[in-house]
Amino acid sequence: LSSAEGLSEEADRFLHECYTELDRTAELPARRRAVAAAIHTSGTYDHTFAELEYGARVAWRNSSRCIGRLYWQSLKLRDHRDTDRPLRIAAECVSHLREATNGGRIRPTITVFAPDRPGRPGPRIRNEQLIRYAGYKVEDGGVVGDPRNIELTDTVRTLGWYGHGTAFDVLPLVIEAPGYRPYIHVIPQDSVLEVPLSHPRHPWFADLGVRWHAVPVISDMCLEIGGLHYPCAPFNGWYMGTEIGSRNLADTDRYDLLPTIAANLGLDTTTDRTLWRDRALVELNVAVLHSYEAAGVTIADHHTEAHRFLKHVAKEERAGRVCPAEWSWIVPPLSGSATAVFHRYYDEVDVRPNFVRHEGPPAPTRAQ
Amino acid sequence: LSSAEGLSEEADRFLHECYTELDRTAELPARRRAVAAAIHTSGTYDHTFAELEYGARVAWRNSSRCIGRLYWQSLKLRDHRDTDRPLRIAAECVSHLREATNGGRIRPTITVFAPDRPGRPGPRIRNEQLIRYAGYKVEDGGVVGDPRNIELTDTVRTLGWYGHGTAFDVLPLVIEAPGYRPYIHVIPQDSVLEVPLSHPRHPWFADLGVRWHAVPVISDMCLEIGGLHYPCAPFNGWYMGTEIGSRNLADTDRYDLLPTIAANLGLDTTTDRTLWRDRALVELNVAVLHSYEAAGVTIADHHTEAHRFLKHVAKEERAGRVCPAEWSWIVPPLSGSATAVFHRYYDEVDVRPNFVRHEGPPAPTRAQ
Ligand code: HEM
Ligand code: HEM
Repeated sequence: LSSAEGLSEEADRFLHECYTELDRTAELPARRRAVAAAIHTSGTYDHTFAELEYGARVAWRNSSRCIGRLYWQSLKLRDHRDTDRPLRIAAECVSHLREATNGGRIRPTITVFAPDRPGRPGPRIRNEQLIRYAGYKVEDGGVVGDPRNIELTDTVRTLGWYGHGTAFDVLPLVIEAPGYRPYIHVIPQDSVLEVPLSHPRHPWFADLGVRWHAVPVISDMCLEIGGLHYPCAPFNGWYMGTEIGSRNLADTDRYDLLPTIAANLGLDTTTDRTLWRDRALVELNVAVLHSYEAAGVTIADHHTEAHRFLKHVAKEERAGRVCPAEWSWIVPPLSGSATAVFHRYYDEVDVRPNFVRHEGPPAPTRAQ
Repeated sequence: LSSAEGLSEEADRFLHECYTELDRTAELPARRRAVAAAIHTSGTYDHTFAELEYGARVAWRNSSRCIGRLYWQSLKLRDHRDTDRPLRIAAECVSHLREATNGGRIRPTITVFAPDRPGRPGPRIRNEQLIRYAGYKVEDGGVVGDPRNIELTDTVRTLGWYGHGTAFDVLPLVIEAPGYRPYIHVIPQDSVLEVPLSHPRHPWFADLGVRWHAVPVISDMCLEIGGLHYPCAPFNGWYMGTEIGSRNLADTDRYDLLPTIAANLGLDTTTDRTLWRDRALVELNVAVLHSYEAAGVTIADHHTEAHRFLKHVAKEERAGRVCPAEWSWIVPPLSGSATAVFHRYYDEVDVRPNFVRHEGPPAPTRAQ
């Protein structure tokens, strides 16, 4: 939490930007006085709904690693700042899932819970995303499920949860709030839309039994607006195919499916030179896009998102704004140079409002 | 050229590093005095052969955009600092090509010509690489050949050269030296090893008539060592396949072959979602690696070079050195996240000796 003085400054800067962009400058002087008074009396202040909505949208607009920002103005705010009890937070996360999933026609959505207050930090969700698959270490040194979530899986097992031991067990939510013990909450199955993967031309693909969930809801980042920190503010867009096909299912420290797919494709995997990894990767990505489309779930391919992003950058420039962007995150992990975003520079600035990681400084270039 | 004082400082720093790393510190004091005296008298100094060889190798080691640095100690130096006449420079470039090509078993090689001197700049080669294909604008607004070299093609046509009008006409060298008019020199055909491209499983590929040259010799960068600038110092390694298959032949502002290849593969190109670009890209890259191998020409795939590079970084760390690297250049343009270099950070420092562009500051992140 910022000191009162730092807070006043950041609040002021935010209010100025907010009321100017919303074309409501007439209200600004009174609002600034009210906020200054609140900070003076209580050490903090409250955002109005309009300020919070604008702040969350601009936090998305300022997310320099996000290629999907063209539609930043469409972000739907679910305002649950009055909620800081773990059980109610969990219930609202489940409602978020249902509303954002929308039967497959995914809606970019954010739910904002109580902010940090002087002497009373806000709640937090331990899960990186609302939906994460468990990872189980097995005897032979291997892993069943998602190796990335082994630690979280261990945590929830300690807290009494146990899964079915499949490769796609949805982990429960772990919610921490001041004054409460860590609370674990099983996500009802019917609020988790999943897509079984198949390939348009390879029937064996479906038999691999691979699936992924429809909606990526990031839940471990802190929304920072005008000096206030909302540590619990899960948000979602839709997936870009490569996140699933090139990373979650392909990374060697994730589901590591390329060798399996290459074997099924009959590729020569005795040498890197046959580019069997590259081939398997493309077919896995084809399967992802095909399956989501067949299931009626919104998903974007990386070429389309790349074009949209450049359109966004151009719009931002026309609006007289710099578009902060990190090349290494914006360029997709598949066929980088074949996407339009590869062939240019970006402004690597770090501005607020924004989504920040709870601990540690943001890293300069790509990596987890 | 550095001022005398700046030059002394840089020379000193270089000599210290050089003699320390070469384990010849006993010679250092006398050598420093001799260099200081030379700078005092003449405003410049000369590198010994050993210093130049070490300097060129370390310039490679410090090339933060180069993934191929594991073998930096093997760089072969051709010392032609006494050469500043255009005709002799051209002849030595041709000899460089022959020696480096080595019948296909490519040898990393650098030829160093006269440095910049006070009042007398060194020679320069206008061509980006010794071997570049002409680019001709044609009536319908299209281009025959390499669009990247349209300007250079126009320049050499103004100087009297004319090509055959094919898509793969090797441009002549354009050499500029103080006191001489720009000199153009046709590279003898038998010193340019080329590889006609074919695909291991698609016979139609060979009928496309696509080819590429064996050796990439960068000729427009300035070698900077201990404050001395060698503006004409062409150097080569071997190709990494993606440079040809993902960039030169695939970029939309280069040979732009993906639509042609996709059509021949019978892919559905009506939407980006079929990932036809990604598929065509992999097949083009397969053809490149296959053809070079079949022709007995050294080439590396990006997976192998990625592993070598990480080995290099580890070796540098063991030697107590930082390895400068730019993520956006190191990560290959194909299947980025499937290569080992994607998943980590690098030190983005800019140190000397190094290869620098003649004009303008180096750019912070990827782009031409
Ligand atoms: C609408 C569709 C969206 C698409 C297609 C999209 C796409 C992406 C992609 C591909 C990444 C990189 C992920 C990775 O490599 O790990 C990313 C990162 C990010 N996106 Fe988006 N996004 C969308 C919506 C949103 C929304 C609604 C928000 C916030 C309101 C958002 C905020 C972010 C942030 C903060 C990151 C960086 C995450 C991190 O540092 O780990 N995005 N996005
Ligand atoms: C031995 C095999 C080599 C391989 C496989 C290799 C690979 C590469 C690759 C893939 C790039 C990026 C090119 C691009 O994306 O445009 C690059 C850049 C570079 N390499 Fe190497 N390289 C090799 C040898 C060398 C040698 C011998 C030198 C110098 C003595 C060198 C110096 C550089 C420099 C200066 C760049 C940056 C060029 C620029 O800024 O345009 N490399 N290398």
